[in-house]
Amino acid sequence: MRRIVFVLIVVAAVAGVVAYMVPASGQADGEAAPIFGVKIPPGYRDWRLISVAHEEGDLNDIRAILGNDVAINAYREGKLPFPDGTIIARLSWSYVPSEENNKVFGRPQSFVPGSATDWYLQFMVKDSKKYAATGGWGFAQFNKDGKPAGEALHKTCFPCHAQEKARDLVFTQYAP
Amino acid sequence: MRRIVFVLIVVAAVAGVVAYMVPASGQADGEAAPIFGVKIPPGYRDWRLISVAHEEGDLNDIRAILGNDVAINAYREGKLPFPDGTIIARLSWSYVPSEENNKVFGRPQSFVPGSATDWYLQFMVKDSKKYAATGGWGFAQFNKDGKPAGEALHKTCFPCHAQEKARDLVFTQYAP
Repeated sequence: MRRIVFVLIVVAAVAGVVAYMVPASGQADGEAAPIFGVKIPPGYRDWRLISVAHEEGDLNDIRAILGNDVAINAYREGKLPFPDGTIIARLSWSYVPSEENNKVFGRPQSFVPGSATDWYLQFMVKDSKKYAATGGWGFAQFNKDGKPAGEALHKTCFPCHAQEKARDLVFTQYAP
Repeated sequence: MRRIVFVLIVVAAVAGVVAYMVPASGQADGEAAPIFGVKIPPGYRDWRLISVAHEEGDLNDIRAILGNDVAINAYREGKLPFPDGTIIARLSWSYVPSEENNKVFGRPQSFVPGSATDWYLQFMVKDSKKYAATGGWGFAQFNKDGKPAGEALHKTCFPCHAQEKARDLVFTQYAP
């Protein structure tokens, strides 16, 4: 009996650890983005919040930036450069006024996420060996259906991010 | 030896379960907000993302809306009214241009969180019995140091939220 209980607890403990790790785990099935070969990491929508932003101009989006556990810990500890295993996700939606909210407020003041943008999902994946040629980062963009953007678009990521060298190529700062 | 291993695994399993539950657990220490008696729930900054928004006008903030596990599950399942135990958190920061980002983009387009707003933290707590007089919701506002707003401000929450009856008094919709 004791042996059965023992085995059950080992199984429960392992299952618990695995269940807890799933959202933060590595790469999933699905089509890999060109150049860097990054796939959409499973559970990214459950990751914790790094920050939010609004981009005007051509982008005209409102966005959330989420991080896996490695990313969140690095941000909170102010650790730079980000350690290998860091994944930062950017989710963006069209920037639209909320007619419902504004009716209550009696004036146009509330802007909220509309539909997913063309390249709804972006990821930065830190692997200092694999991505040594691009500052240790792999970049990827996907639409809302999980289809990656083409090679031309992926070539534009690094030159832009490279200008943010003081922050290890990452634009987003942690919102406390 | 087997007994020691057994005990260690039980301790590890219990610790794992407790550690996992902490961010989503109920009320914490700290000063309770007036009228509804809501305290800041522990681990709210680790909760999952519901949505983001920008409020213009007097508020002029950019915000993230996070939910505990009950809230996230209800949103994802489209469950209305929200079940007891739902807690929705709103974190807001001043809305400021990012000079760093704009330098890279070559134009003013990027708006990011500045400092915490005066009432940085808001919570809606669902308890259909305790808060029956206010649609089943308790409301609370705190500044960045965890100090609750006064009674007058807390009296303004329900009349405004009551106008969003079709969504169980909740303005924020889930950003997919």
